[in-house]
Amino acid sequence: MKDVVDQLASEKSEHVEKLIEWLKIPSVSTDSSLKGEVRRAGQWIEEELSSAGFETRLDDTDGHPICLAQWTGAEGAPTLLIYGHYDVQPPEPLDLWRHGAFEPTLEGDDLVARGATDDKGQALALVRGVCGVLRSRGSLPINVKFVIEGEEEIGSPNLTGYLEAHKDELSADVALIADCSQFGPGMPAITVGLKGLVYLEIHLQGPNRDLHSGSFGGAVENPANALTRILGSLRDDKGHITIPGFYEKVRDLTEEERAAIRELNFDEEGFRTDLEVPMVHGEEGYSTLERKWARPTLDINGLLSGWTGEGAKTVLPAHASAKMSMRLVPDQDPDEIADLVVQHLKSICPETCSIDVHCHHGAKPVLVEQNSPWLDATSRAIEKGFGKAPVMIREGGSIPVVSDLKATLGMDTILLGLGLPDDNAHSPNEKFHLPDYQKGIETMAWLLDEMASV
Amino acid sequence: MKDVVDQLASEKSEHVEKLIEWLKIPSVSTDSSLKGEVRRAGQWIEEELSSAGFETRLDDTDGHPICLAQWTGAEGAPTLLIYGHYDVQPPEPLDLWRHGAFEPTLEGDDLVARGATDDKGQALALVRGVCGVLRSRGSLPINVKFVIEGEEEIGSPNLTGYLEAHKDELSADVALIADCSQFGPGMPAITVGLKGLVYLEIHLQGPNRDLHSGSFGGAVENPANALTRILGSLRDDKGHITIPGFYEKVRDLTEEERAAIRELNFDEEGFRTDLEVPMVHGEEGYSTLERKWARPTLDINGLLSGWTGEGAKTVLPAHASAKMSMRLVPDQDPDEIADLVVQHLKSICPETCSIDVHCHHGAKPVLVEQNSPWLDATSRAIEKGFGKAPVMIREGGSIPVVSDLKATLGMDTILLGLGLPDDNAHSPNEKFHLPDYQKGIETMAWLLDEMASV
Repeated sequence: MKDVVDQLASEKSEHVEKLIEWLKIPSVSTDSSLKGEVRRAGQWIEEELSSAGFETRLDDTDGHPICLAQWTGAEGAPTLLIYGHYDVQPPEPLDLWRHGAFEPTLEGDDLVARGATDDKGQALALVRGVCGVLRSRGSLPINVKFVIEGEEEIGSPNLTGYLEAHKDELSADVALIADCSQFGPGMPAITVGLKGLVYLEIHLQGPNRDLHSGSFGGAVENPANALTRILGSLRDDKGHITIPGFYEKVRDLTEEERAAIRELNFDEEGFRTDLEVPMVHGEEGYSTLERKWARPTLDINGLLSGWTGEGAKTVLPAHASAKMSMRLVPDQDPDEIADLVVQHLKSICPETCSIDVHCHHGAKPVLVEQNSPWLDATSRAIEKGFGKAPVMIREGGSIPVVSDLKATLGMDTILLGLGLPDDNAHSPNEKFHLPDYQKGIETMAWLLDEMASV
Repeated sequence: MKDVVDQLASEKSEHVEKLIEWLKIPSVSTDSSLKGEVRRAGQWIEEELSSAGFETRLDDTDGHPICLAQWTGAEGAPTLLIYGHYDVQPPEPLDLWRHGAFEPTLEGDDLVARGATDDKGQALALVRGVCGVLRSRGSLPINVKFVIEGEEEIGSPNLTGYLEAHKDELSADVALIADCSQFGPGMPAITVGLKGLVYLEIHLQGPNRDLHSGSFGGAVENPANALTRILGSLRDDKGHITIPGFYEKVRDLTEEERAAIRELNFDEEGFRTDLEVPMVHGEEGYSTLERKWARPTLDINGLLSGWTGEGAKTVLPAHASAKMSMRLVPDQDPDEIADLVVQHLKSICPETCSIDVHCHHGAKPVLVEQNSPWLDATSRAIEKGFGKAPVMIREGGSIPVVSDLKATLGMDTILLGLGLPDDNAHSPNEKFHLPDYQKGIETMAWLLDEMASV
């Protein structure tokens, strides 16, 4: 494979040109006025795979299409299913970008554009690596299937159904996703744990109309008062979540896992100063990395009640609402936790107002089996591609497709991170470090080889 | 005075026509595009007083003008200062009005329009009563001064300075304001207590930017979490405010006062069903009327943080804010309470984020001395005008000019309520019950007589 990797190394500028082409397409999946552009981004990657020799389709869904590409000429060899997404987050707030979000711009070694790391850059690294091997050799050492969807940033509403409907076609030995981060510069990583999620919306209704806080204050429940009492009680002064049963199924970190986390020497002071907070914060008894990776959390994501404009209005609001989410760890189940939390919220809501709780969506937590030949193969490929063995990390975010792949297709997923923690995914001036893009492309070639020998 | 009152009774339709004329002028003081209309409403009332024989001026201020009118021909007789305002609240939300807010419409015995009760209708009742006497008799039995301003609904920013600057000109024995309510239909009332106010705006800052709640949740303080903990702790489960020292200067209700309140037989079930709440609510140990009138309150008037649009966004907000106000009772001082509360909020804000508290404005609570010949005179006048002796009530709202009049001019104020509790002041379909308008006009004539004999 050395010859192919050398060839890939010599094509650096073409890899970047291709990525710039893709990034110029404003494929914002949540913006219905950009439906055509989203499709165009799907067509673009289909064409990239097709021209290299993949058998491709752009399958329509009720939303944006899914690009399916297969090369299955390696009879008897393992099959790898690669997932990625070609849709991106909205670029807003636009005024914080140093240039147009869809005008990819080189800043030193970084390529700055919406989707640079999430997920066009990372997905294209895998595509360029695999296609490079296919072009050079005329064949691949293993079978490879790509599923690249256009709805990840809106919660993949059509993906599970698609996986279900194409079960046989998508069968593979293991799945691979590059939609995470390295641990830090020069510290490539494999993500072996993801948190799950329960997202709730809470509405409290007090009186039937907004009231004068002088004439009615103190004589009728103010739902904003009640909401803060309810939400404020959900964590104690040690940062523990107080919902009965919430921790019941939490799998504790083993001493070995805690030791491995300590060995990563996380730069807590750098983390703190980057965020400009006086101190870090969280559940007592755990380090920052342990909290981020392996402890469940509860965050209010939004609060709204009464008068929020300029100045003062002495209103006793009729209504108060909150968005709140919990990140779950193995072995918490999102449905069970949702029931538990809804029941608790209802039980502590005062009888003086009514509460309504709506569950938006959930995701199961994931813990990857580390005694896996596929993981070992990926480790070896990273060591060759990056010149350094990867560290095993977890991630506080959720990638629902991972548990979907397990549930529908019965396969485990390897989570590769080519990005960096400060890549500004979902934020203005999103970037991708081009040396890592190149390393990712080369790693992919090595990975095909390593998997062929499993 | 019987002859004059009969005359006033015969002029019913003219009183109403005049009120309709005034109500048609959209004098919304907060809307700078209506500056000319606000002035026109001031000119209208000046003309009304001037044509009856008052010496009048429209004095400019940095904002809207103040109408000053005086008749001081009753040498040796007492002097009454009457305060009112000709500006009104914005009419929004417009779609909830049954007709144009500035197209006064008769609905049975009610006149429906913005400003009908607050305060054009009530102020004009006083003006029409006094002017009727002056027209009939050619003189008044006491000296009368009117101060009718155009900035009450925006917090009277220029009134205190005006009172201060015109101290001598405005000197009087007692002040009278009709900007309150009766206790209920057929239950005329004199308001003898008003709550004070402290209005705060609270900002909590966490990290320097909105964060991904998966990657950062549980490892850095979420200011929305912190805000609900802080605000949720400000009242205990018995509805008592927990801020140290908050109740220290509260003047307790006497047994006599509590008995008087009980005798009013407040329709708590009607209050509850009108608001459509499952039960009333408030500080333990007090009745609904006691809470409304004589116990300090703490209400969150607004909450804002993070994502409040449709659907879900897993954001850990950088910032959370609240508007909060406390209604004060004698002898709480708004400046002292503001200091106390700000200090307490700062002391319970976790060190993991920073807090900023801005005080919008305050007002002193008022308790009128009930052993007053002026109050007795007013009582007798009401009994003649309404055919029923008034009850003494308090009000949870604040009228800052009352303590201003005491502080700058050294005079007590009598608070007359011609409106009804369901007049929808500040709300759509504001109304004024015309039989009460007429009774107010006639009461005013009797009041001049009664005060002349004090």
